This record gives sequence, C-alpha cells and structure tokens, in this order.
Amino acid sequence: VELVLVGDGRAIEPHLPAAAGVEVVHAPEFVPPHAPPVQAARRKDTSLARGLEILAQGKADAFLSPGNTGAVVAAALLRLGRLPGVKRPGLCASLPTLVGKEFLLIDVGATADPKPEHLVQFALMGRLYAQEVLGFSQPTVGLLSIGAEAEKGDKLMRATHALLREEEWFSGNVEPHELLTRRPVDVVVCGGVPGNLTLKALEGGAEAAWTALKGALLGSLRGKLAGWLARPALKALARSLAYDRYNGAPLLGVAGLVLVAHGRSTAGAMEGALQRTFWAAQAEIVQRLGEKLKACSK
Amino acid sequence: VELVLVGDGRAIEPHLPAAAGVEVVHAPEFVPPHAPPVQAARRKDTSLARGLEILAQGKADAFLSPGNTGAVVAAALLRLGRLPGVKRPGLCASLPTLVGKEFLLIDVGATADPKPEHLVQFALMGRLYAQEVLGFSQPTVGLLSIGAEAEKGDKLMRATHALLREEEWFSGNVEPHELLTRRPVDVVVCGGVPGNLTLKALEGGAEAAWTALKGALLGSLRGKLAGWLARPALKALARSLAYDRYNGAPLLGVAGLVLVAHGRSTAGAMEGALQRTFWAAQAEIVQRLGEKLKACSK
Repeated sequence: VELVLVGDGRAIEPHLPAAAGVEVVHAPEFVPPHAPPVQAARRKDTSLARGLEILAQGKADAFLSPGNTGAVVAAALLRLGRLPGVKRPGLCASLPTLVGKEFLLIDVGATADPKPEHLVQFALMGRLYAQEVLGFSQPTVGLLSIGAEAEKGDKLMRATHALLREEEWFSGNVEPHELLTRRPVDVVVCGGVPGNLTLKALEGGAEAAWTALKGALLGSLRGKLAGWLARPALKALARSLAYDRYNGAPLLGVAGLVLVAHGRSTAGAMEGALQRTFWAAQAEIVQRLGEKLKACSK
Repeated sequence: VELVLVGDGRAIEPHLPAAAGVEVVHAPEFVPPHAPPVQAARRKDTSLARGLEILAQGKADAFLSPGNTGAVVAAALLRLGRLPGVKRPGLCASLPTLVGKEFLLIDVGATADPKPEHLVQFALMGRLYAQEVLGFSQPTVGLLSIGAEAEKGDKLMRATHALLREEEWFSGNVEPHELLTRRPVDVVVCGGVPGNLTLKALEGGAEAAWTALKGALLGSLRGKLAGWLARPALKALARSLAYDRYNGAPLLGVAGLVLVAHGRSTAGAMEGALQRTFWAAQAEIVQRLGEKLKACSK
C-alpha cells in the first residue's frame, strides 16, 4: 500500500520519519470546517481539490478525508461526477452494536432532500458495500421510520416503503432506539438529514450516559473506588466497541472511491479509516457498484 | 384535584382502594398500541373517545393518556379541533439534561409533513408552555438541524430558519449530540418525524451505553464488586435524572388540554405525568395559547 499525504507540506514534513515511505503532495490551501460546501468545492488549491485530482487522474485508488463533509461531497460530485445511473450519492456510516456486529446507515448527510427512488438506490448500494467490503452474506435492509407499520413516517418514508416492500431482502421499518441494542438489520436506509440527526443523537445519548456516570462516580470516595475497580472492564468494553475501527464512511455513488472520516479522528481512528479505505479499494467497490446499478437500471 | 379513570371498569375497580376518591368511567373498548390512528380515533366506545368526550363537555380540565400516540393525536383533532389560528398541533416532550434543567422538543410526532409556518407556530407554542407552565423566563428557541449554519439541513429547515432569524429569542440551529450535554436552548423546534427520530435515538444511545456498561461489569468478580460499590452513586444519579418527572408531553394547538405519557410508564412515571398535567391545567395553558396565537395571527 502506498500512502500519499495531501496538505501543507511545510506542516507535514517535520512530523514524517525519514523512512516513512509516504509521498507528500503540497496544497497551499485547505477547506475550513464550516466553509459553505459548494464555494469551497470550487477552490482549486485546497488539499481537498488536489487529493481528488490525484484520484481522478488514476494516480490513486482511493481518497480519504477527515475534513468538511459537505465540501467533500460537493467536490467529489464536481470533480468525479456520479456513476452512470446513480441519481444521488449516499454517505454510508458503520456503527458498532451491542450484539457484536456493525450495521450500516445510509445516507448520513450527502443528500438533503432525496426522493423515494434515491433511497432505493441507497439500499442497493449499501447492500453491495455490506456484501463485498464487509463480507455480510445476504444483507437485510430496514427503512428508518418512527413506527413499524408501513403507514408510519413522512411522505418520503411511506413512498419508499411502498417501493421496497416487494424486495425479499427488505425487513420493513426500523426505529432508532433499537439500532444499537437489537441490531434489527444489516443496512438502515434513510434520507441524509434524518440519517445525520439519528447518528448524532445516538452518539449524543451514549455520551450523555457516560458523562453522567463519570460525574456520579467522582462525587464520592466510594464511587471513585468503584471507578478504579471497574477500569479493566471498561477498557475491555472500549476495545470491544472500538469506535476507531468503524471510522471511514464511503460516499457511495460517485465515480471514484471517496471516504469521509470523523472530523475529530485520533491517530487510531485514522488508522481504522485507512483500513476500511484499503478494504473498499481491494474489493473494487466502485466498479462493482457501477456494474450493479447498470444491471438494475436496465 | 379530582381524578377520573376511564377504561374497563371491571379491570379497574378491584385495584382501587375503597376510599380512593377516584371516579371510574367505564369504556368497553380500548385502542391497541399499533392500531391505525385515524380508524381508531373514529371508534366511539374506546377509553380514548370517552375520555376526550368528558374533556370536550367541560367535565374535566385535562386528559392524559399513555396509549397509542397517533390515535390520541387523531382523536383529539377529530373531537376537540384546533385552536383558532393554529394550523397543525405539536407534541411537546421534556428531556432532562446533564446541566440540571430540562428542555423542550416540539414536535415529537403529531405532524408528519409540516410546512415552515407550522414550525414557527411550534416555536411560539413551545415558548409559551416553557414560560407559563415550567416557569422559564424569556425562553430561547433553537431549530433542530445538521449543522450550525443557516444553509444546513433540508428545505424545511432552511425555510424555517429564514422565518425565525429575525426573532430575538431565536438562537439559530442546534444539533442532536449537544442537546443532553450542553443544553444550548430552552425549546428545540422540528418536524414531527425528525423530532421523534431524535428523541428515540437519544434514548437508544443512552440505553445502549448503560447496557454495555452493565454487561462489562458483570463479566468479572472485580467488575461486580465495582458495580456494588457504585450502586449508591448510580441510584443518586437516577434520582437526579428522574426520567419519571419529565413524563407527560402536551399536545399543543388542540382546543383542549391533552397530554401523552410514555406507553411503558411505571406508576411513578404516571405520577410525574399527572403532576405536569396539573401544572398545565392550573396555568390555563390552552386559553393562553388561544390568546397568544390570536394576537400573533393579527
């Protein structure tokens, strides 16, 4: 595997060991975290634009960015375009669960106002990624909604349910509170905005529980002792959940392999995202998606 | 305070102490949890229909139900109607936070496909409830979205942001992951579907964290000892969060005081919901909403 780092060369070089074997491509500018995506995507001297250029030229097999997600999506659409037949791209996040196996949530923010047929494509693309990259056999798909019944949810959810109901891999509606504990399906399909809200609320709920717990234990000597005794178990738990390993969400549907990592990724989390990027490249997921969607649109 | 219990009299009576002073109104039928709301709302012999009838006749000041939320909303609209000037009702949930003060989330599921002007009314109604019932002074309002910038989110969020931006009590967009830990605003406004997804995902994320923790501690003797030592701190924490106290979401915008309690409410949770119902009745929130919305629509 050959790595190319794209960014401010003067900032990167001092941190690279001499024998790291990592190529550095200098980019004088970068996209700030909250820059408006479309304008940011048009700028040519950013690390984002330079990185996608290398990918578009075939000098790299994949592109991974922990930067401004909206800008990555806009720039990927602008510089790579969509796969033939794909109407909208979907960002596909992996989440660890209590049953010891991850599930996919697509879309978590690439497409803000999708139509039902876009969600059907997200389902097809998510299934293929689950199968070819993660090795799930016969992946099942659920539709994110606010109740199990077909008529629950908004217009988009109801119309999508009607389109998916005949598919043998479709398991019906799923609700957010069961995703981490019960893991009802392999792939959860939704629009970019509900998907992003759900992802952030699941993370926020878990974070609030941990923070409350920590605060409660630190309030007494007995609690502190309990915390000290619990440490090995908590460390083992953190390893088993290993959020780092689930970092790296592919932007499915664009004509090139692009993954987005968490903006606050640690070194370990970037390692996890690179691992996923490597798997996806090795599985030639973009080529397979192209073939699959061509076959389905016939 | 006089209580009236509406339901299967034969099932209720044996559980009532002789001197309970609670009136029982017999209803031969009830609405099952997953019954389609609109059909269920039309049935006349359910505890739901009978209870709302008592309210509509002025024989009660408020109606509280832990039943099928969709059916309660549909039946309230059918049997009570909306307050003059109100376009859509909003279900207003209270959530406890780590900073020790609750916030309101409106709508959590009454209106599936709202328009921007409906969300503006949810903001006005949520503020009035926060002020008159919970005693918050000058409540601030945030719009649920997927980023802080005005252009983030779907069409509904962007159009609502544009309508709210001039209000001095509007604090801009808020994201789900900060709601429980930072509590950025007093009232969070959103459509019924994103609101319901966010509520369930926050609860699901917290539940997953607790369950994972419990499982990790039970795996070793040392962990079990830590759990035993931590018990007083965890009990104090549970008391301070006291989800029970936040039970009871008013359905704002209908012409009568209707509250919905969690379907899986314990006795303590029903007590909390009754307390809130009492506060809301005492504050004459429905009358005040009527006056406020009449004034705003002029």
